Amino acid sequence: MTRYNAFYAQSGGVSSVINASACGVIETCRKHSDKIGTLYAGRNGIIGALTENLIDVGEESDESIAALRHTPGGAFGSCRYKLKDIDTHRVQYERLIEVFQAHNIRYFFYNGGGDSADTCLKVSQLSERMGYPLQAIHVPKTIDNDLPLTDCSPGFGSVAKYIATSVREAALDVLSMCATSTKVFVMEAMGRHAGWIAASGALGGGEGSAPPHMVLFPEIAFDRRRVMRKVDETVKQYGYCVIVVSEGVRYEDGTFLADAGNTDAFGHRQLGGVAPTLAGMIKQDLGYKYHWSVPDYLQRSARHLASKVDVEQAYAVGVRAVECAIEGKNAVMPAIRRDNQSPFEWSIFDAPLSEVANQEKFMPEDYIREDGFGITQACRDYLEPLIQGEDEPPYVNGLPDYAQLKLVGVPQKLAPFSL
Amino acid sequence: MTRYNAFYAQSGGVSSVINASACGVIETCRKHSDKIGTLYAGRNGIIGALTENLIDVGEESDESIAALRHTPGGAFGSCRYKLKDIDTHRVQYERLIEVFQAHNIRYFFYNGGGDSADTCLKVSQLSERMGYPLQAIHVPKTIDNDLPLTDCSPGFGSVAKYIATSVREAALDVLSMCATSTKVFVMEAMGRHAGWIAASGALGGGEGSAPPHMVLFPEIAFDRRRVMRKVDETVKQYGYCVIVVSEGVRYEDGTFLADAGNTDAFGHRQLGGVAPTLAGMIKQDLGYKYHWSVPDYLQRSARHLASKVDVEQAYAVGVRAVECAIEGKNAVMPAIRRDNQSPFEWSIFDAPLSEVANQEKFMPEDYIREDGFGITQACRDYLEPLIQGEDEPPYVNGLPDYAQLKLVGVPQKLAPFSL
Repeated sequence: MTRYNAFYAQSGGVSSVINASACGVIETCRKHSDKIGTLYAGRNGIIGALTENLIDVGEESDESIAALRHTPGGAFGSCRYKLKDIDTHRVQYERLIEVFQAHNIRYFFYNGGGDSADTCLKVSQLSERMGYPLQAIHVPKTIDNDLPLTDCSPGFGSVAKYIATSVREAALDVLSMCATSTKVFVMEAMGRHAGWIAASGALGGGEGSAPPHMVLFPEIAFDRRRVMRKVDETVKQYGYCVIVVSEGVRYEDGTFLADAGNTDAFGHRQLGGVAPTLAGMIKQDLGYKYHWSVPDYLQRSARHLASKVDVEQAYAVGVRAVECAIEGKNAVMPAIRRDNQSPFEWSIFDAPLSEVANQEKFMPEDYIREDGFGITQACRDYLEPLIQGEDEPPYVNGLPDYAQLKLVGVPQKLAPFSL
Repeated sequence: MTRYNAFYAQSGGVSSVINASACGVIETCRKHSDKIGTLYAGRNGIIGALTENLIDVGEESDESIAALRHTPGGAFGSCRYKLKDIDTHRVQYERLIEVFQAHNIRYFFYNGGGDSADTCLKVSQLSERMGYPLQAIHVPKTIDNDLPLTDCSPGFGSVAKYIATSVREAALDVLSMCATSTKVFVMEAMGRHAGWIAASGALGGGEGSAPPHMVLFPEIAFDRRRVMRKVDETVKQYGYCVIVVSEGVRYEDGTFLADAGNTDAFGHRQLGGVAPTLAGMIKQDLGYKYHWSVPDYLQRSARHLASKVDVEQAYAVGVRAVECAIEGKNAVMPAIRRDNQSPFEWSIFDAPLSEVANQEKFMPEDYIREDGFGITQACRDYLEPLIQGEDEPPYVNGLPDYAQLKLVGVPQKLAPFSL
């Protein structure tokens, strides 16, 4: 077998375990150095390929690569950049071929979510449509958990663990104070159009008195009167109310809660945040003292609290991606299959990329409780295995010790290209 | 020695290690059961004493008490309630004596910050001023780190570790994305009038390129033009800018940034948050895409990320408080003395409560860098030992397993008392 070089890049919003997938890809490439030559990483995703900004991964030590497994963020830089259609923007694809050819690259690993899968699918067509022999493998990643076919998306389990842990901890704080101080606590969860992350907040509690007492999903239209009634009932019954609200919560007419036309004194749109918006409504309608929290990026970078299952799955899809390449596959995505619920067992299978790209997986209706304010047992059964196990990073001087790569650039061979 | 009963209560905003102090108090009382009879806890701080809402700590198993050491929040309930002056509000103090007498209580342990130290000091005067033989010992706690005499306040070290870790993690996320997306990240830290917690954010970075690139202190008047210039320079130099901002940041004239007279479309005061306010200014003045985070209660309840040094100190002040009582002391507070910097060594001494109550410890001027946007080496030397070591709680089913006490109420002997 002739040796060809490989390209790896990270795309879209990063997570606390996307580097664990990178680690899986890189370590497996190194194991198969008889088949895969140099591995290049794209600086800032596909942009690195288009602009010939390549990083020589071979310059990184085995220790640095191993440390990627416990390092959050995207070590090679990520991007929000979608390739246009191959028919209308042929020049982009010709450029990709030019760069790949110049560096003898025939394996393409792209690590991202739904939008990135679309980019990967387009690149996978280079061989059939444009005659350049390339195999493109997608490595799944998204905290939003909205990729189809796969049981879950690497990155999600760790956010779920962070949200469930954080709400459990903060709820103990609020419970301590509610007699004379804060009565309502609102915590905002990421997840855009899908309620997966908000739902995971419910893992920290249970039925009845255990907080969070309410979860607000993007899938359920926001009805201010109903929500306020439930908040009021909860405070009256338990003395306090803890709420997890998804950033994507909307009114019946589709407008986002956090973008309800409010402007500040200078005429600017109100500064984001569903949590402060909802907390303000509660103060206005019910008069309760509140606190709110918007963890934002903290939730998707909290590698110190990663789910061990999530880290293992993220690594495994990286490993399998390289194996797929060696087996001659193209346009596939290693995906996770849930083989057994209890004890939890899972395996990896190769999903066709054409069925993954541009598809969103929404929460099944029967995962949301009938009253719309919590999760069902079916949802709990689905979520719980994904947050199992801890995988603490090493600590130095009291802080997590994260990988710092050298990121040595590869000398450019081609003329510059503007995006 | 005749056996008398004891009273313990938690006061003010709670922390992730105040229960570790409770654990120290309770375990030490149990060790000295020849001298201390029943230990009662006040439900919701001093309010529990005034309303005769006592919890029989004896009903809790040794295992539950041991688990308090790793449980955040205030297990017995806390309060924001300050006793009035003994001369003008004699009836409150007579009520306290009535309750203590009814339950044979002669030891009073109060676990809180500066305001609570004032309450404890007032209670300590019961014996001298009103003839009731009581010993009052204050157990220090406050995340704000503003108690005098003690090297640090139990609770602070763990928040410092949380903030430093979180900003390091989130900064890796922002660095990954800054080529095509978020360029500025603003994270808000608690701490009211003192910049201690914001300062600890700088531990995650260093000089030059290592984030956070800027820390904004309440001690330094906010100068919008200077701040914007620094943000702009930082983005131009490093591609991104990570900022830790204290909730207490103010303009030259003393008004808080987060309360600058802005109102929303309904005429309400702008919903809090220095971070979104500052992020909005950056967008307005410089046009950079931003994200912001307000962890709020998450930072002071994140027991999963506690500092081992902090937990040990919190426990030790609880232990020493009981020893003080047995030694016949009154109106003291076990405080922490830094005996050696490297290796870090500390011990406990008994500080006079009169010198603690109602005093605030501010950051020394030479802890803030000359440009006002970072910390000095002296500050780093002070802070670093306080975040050392990890002390993870046990995990069950993927989540921290926190103590759940029975909180059995003691039958009331007296007529009700209204606050």
